[in-house]
Amino acid sequence: MKDSAKISPSVIRRLPRYYRFLRDLENEGISRISSKALSEKMGVTASQIRQDLNCFGGFGQQGYGYNISDLKSEIAGILGIGHTCKIILIGAGNLGRAVATHMPFEALGFELAAIFDAASLFSGLKIKDLPIRSMDNLNDFCRLHKPQAAILCVPDDSAKELVTRLSSLGIHSFWNFTHYDISKDHPDAIVENVHLSDSLMTLSYQMKCSL
Amino acid sequence: MKDSAKISPSVIRRLPRYYRFLRDLENEGISRISSKALSEKMGVTASQIRQDLNCFGGFGQQGYGYNISDLKSEIAGILGIGHTCKIILIGAGNLGRAVATHMPFEALGFELAAIFDAASLFSGLKIKDLPIRSMDNLNDFCRLHKPQAAILCVPDDSAKELVTRLSSLGIHSFWNFTHYDISKDHPDAIVENVHLSDSLMTLSYQMKCSL
Repeated sequence: MKDSAKISPSVIRRLPRYYRFLRDLENEGISRISSKALSEKMGVTASQIRQDLNCFGGFGQQGYGYNISDLKSEIAGILGIGHTCKIILIGAGNLGRAVATHMPFEALGFELAAIFDAASLFSGLKIKDLPIRSMDNLNDFCRLHKPQAAILCVPDDSAKELVTRLSSLGIHSFWNFTHYDISKDHPDAIVENVHLSDSLMTLSYQMKCSL
Repeated sequence: MKDSAKISPSVIRRLPRYYRFLRDLENEGISRISSKALSEKMGVTASQIRQDLNCFGGFGQQGYGYNISDLKSEIAGILGIGHTCKIILIGAGNLGRAVATHMPFEALGFELAAIFDAASLFSGLKIKDLPIRSMDNLNDFCRLHKPQAAILCVPDDSAKELVTRLSSLGIHSFWNFTHYDISKDHPDAIVENVHLSDSLMTLSYQMKCSL
């Protein structure tokens, strides 16, 4: 395997999609696939696939295709899937509950370790066998369990203060569903933003252009 | 305004974020802002802002800054915010409910016209004053109300058949939360994908690289 630092960011951005298709193929009991067959399945050109997967060298043999399990493990290694990372969820509203119930955390290398919400309304409720905890318990929990990442499903106006608090508790990686710009105040934080309203505006733009 | 077809795709991708900041500034009662002040607020360089907003010509006057309301309207026009587009939501599980309750549809130029779910479990329930309708009523509803777009919050394995059905009902624009690759089977469809697990894998990759 090439040093992952040498793989271009655009290839890295495409890896999760390769991983997903390879996992599905493996689940179907398929062990090898040609770049042509994979390209038809994924709707990209075979040459793009060869170029992308070339980075990992040696997996695609002329005439034999790719060994699905090896290639999937290789990509999993690069993406960091495999070490388990403890992540906590803050905010158990509809969005937080959707994230907690829908995301295949374990398959993606995360352990959802706890769920917190500011509203006492939820106390006593459970999501996926995890109790919804009070924010009063956040500091104790973090000191004891040392989660490395947090999912932010809180209202925008409480995000800034929350990130400061989480940083002081040793959490510097965020899956951020709010509009708060974490990187601006915390330039060293690792941040992956999900901006759903930007995505909906992009749809609106594409629809308008097609009129 | 320049013809929006001439604006580069990377600028278009950044417009929703500009729109969001301008809307917030307007809500705070601010009417003008310099590229320097806007750059500090948004955490990008002033030169990037001038370069991006130059596309719309005439709004940034040397020494006067941008007229926030004009610039916001201009960007809204380009993004297609302003015409109202009828959109329907299919799938009223946690994710569908989160989307229905959280998204500011009207502010983004959409009217959430109806919510459908295959499970009779939900029938009779309402989200945001909209009843959850049975899929049996989908065809009649579409013929009568002619929605132009659909949000797909259904399980992956039911997405393909659903998109074929929606296409036959005149819906060709999709905000797609499933992993089904719509564009492959429907190359003319307008598709905006939200792949949450790809986003979480990207976080995992960034965390691994920082170790």
